[in-house]
Amino acid sequence: MGMESVAAETSFADPNAAEEAFYRAFRDGDIETMRAVWSTTADVVCVHPAHTALTGYAEVMASWESILATTEGFDIRFLCRHEIGEGALVVHVGVEEITSADGNRVTVPATNAYRRTPDGWQLFLHHASPVQVEAEAGPLH
Amino acid sequence: MGMESVAAETSFADPNAAEEAFYRAFRDGDIETMRAVWSTTADVVCVHPAHTALTGYAEVMASWESILATTEGFDIRFLCRHEIGEGALVVHVGVEEITSADGNRVTVPATNAYRRTPDGWQLFLHHASPVQVEAEAGPLH
Repeated sequence: MGMESVAAETSFADPNAAEEAFYRAFRDGDIETMRAVWSTTADVVCVHPAHTALTGYAEVMASWESILATTEGFDIRFLCRHEIGEGALVVHVGVEEITSADGNRVTVPATNAYRRTPDGWQLFLHHASPVQVEAEAGPLH
Repeated sequence: MGMESVAAETSFADPNAAEEAFYRAFRDGDIETMRAVWSTTADVVCVHPAHTALTGYAEVMASWESILATTEGFDIRFLCRHEIGEGALVVHVGVEEITSADGNRVTVPATNAYRRTPDGWQLFLHHASPVQVEAEAGPLH
């Protein structure tokens, strides 16, 4: 199709579009799309599994640069189980299905929250947990 | 005064009041207050550290009955680092400081989300993660 490059998607019409782009960027190691998905404000929060919370666009993006540079050959899909929305704010709770290059699959509970801005819907909270045991298998807290 | 018992608080004027009651119920093993804090709907979600998500009021309350019956002598406080709100929906992201009976302290990232109902503000999402490593100490995802 000629010399034109395909521009990264930078604006998302609804939370689902932003979520799709987030996980696609994660799978594909696409830092440009990852940058576009997140709100650029100081109040964004990202909790990677088994880690303390990272806050602010710069700190969160530094973590994604590190992650996207070192992970490959895996698949990740988000199954949204619950959507709770109110005006310009939507919270998704569900599980990430992660399949490693050698075919092992794990599921990870995750909460993603989006808000509507003049530039479209943006992610401002990603909270992913490690899963070590099933719900009935151990102490709950 | 006299013979009247102190009625459990069952309605909360703002998200902070609901959050205060949630952690007080947790500390004190007070299942009645815990029941009052949560939205009674089918779409509530609770992710205990290292567990898969529990959904629906009945399932979530069963988990709290189990937890409150077996934990004691500890302290738990929530430090809200970020509040993102929109109309009748408010998301709090922060850390729980948990001090065990023998004085060990751990911090746990947590997301709590509240909505305003005709019966006051109610908790509908609690997502708490285990922390195993510091942010810079290992692979992030």
